[in-house]
Amino acid sequence: MSVTDELLANAERYAETFDKGHLPLPPATGVAVVACMDARLNVYGLLGLAEGDAHVIRNAGGVITADERRSLAISQRLLGTREIILIHHTDCGMLTFTDDGFKESIRAEVGIKPDWPAEAFPDLEEDVLQSIARVRADPFIPEKGSVRGFVYEVETGRLREVKA
Amino acid sequence: MSVTDELLANAERYAETFDKGHLPLPPATGVAVVACMDARLNVYGLLGLAEGDAHVIRNAGGVITADERRSLAISQRLLGTREIILIHHTDCGMLTFTDDGFKESIRAEVGIKPDWPAEAFPDLEEDVLQSIARVRADPFIPEKGSVRGFVYEVETGRLREVKA
Repeated sequence: MSVTDELLANAERYAETFDKGHLPLPPATGVAVVACMDARLNVYGLLGLAEGDAHVIRNAGGVITADERRSLAISQRLLGTREIILIHHTDCGMLTFTDDGFKESIRAEVGIKPDWPAEAFPDLEEDVLQSIARVRADPFIPEKGSVRGFVYEVETGRLREVKA
Repeated sequence: MSVTDELLANAERYAETFDKGHLPLPPATGVAVVACMDARLNVYGLLGLAEGDAHVIRNAGGVITADERRSLAISQRLLGTREIILIHHTDCGMLTFTDDGFKESIRAEVGIKPDWPAEAFPDLEEDVLQSIARVRADPFIPEKGSVRGFVYEVETGRLREVKA
């Protein structure tokens, strides 16, 4: 049995007691979260979200690339969200390598250099500010006034705000 | 008080009882999930994940673009995951518009046509298969044998597998 099969058994148990079939498509809080994919960062638990509350967008680093700008534009323009929360975290994998080195290691093994945008960062707070700046500079996200950025501390469970 | 402030108050309560400061960076289950950002899709709750268990990658639609391929390459190559679970869902916003129409409406309002990849889809199951195919075709994700795709039913809480 694969781990995937074990998680599917969990999903069957989730469905057995499911009572949230009536929730509307637009998020109840009007919030979109952009966070790192890190396994220790439980966005629902941390922010006290329940099913239906907020859009949750995640990738390696919680960085803002073209795909996050697309998702935020859809979130706000088609589904009515108005606030944006950005979350990076301590002990992030993105602090442990350089884009040049990672791409070169893949090129050496596979024979092709990756074509995706490279987004490793050496400074956590600086990259939160970079993400805020990218959201603010985006012409397609209408509501940018509320965007705020945070570092989640995986050691303490605390969320601390990063300000310029 | 903004909604963001309310969620930050929830985060303070999360930290008060936090006891997971010892978890390692690599996900315990070796699984990476790619899911839609939809507020009703609670990935941790559905799959029974706890802090530290799995990478969770999310965007509008749960589609595979360059940024998800980057995140999956980092997840597997640097943090040791080996299985991939893809989750789309019923009543998805991506079924409600066309890329051409959405981009044209933004161009008409803002004066600039969005430069991000367009990923709306008219058929849910077909797009799950499309996502599986994109993962399988990617030269930079090493472990592709286990990838499986699902539709989460927001009406019933059930997860059903999509097979070609």
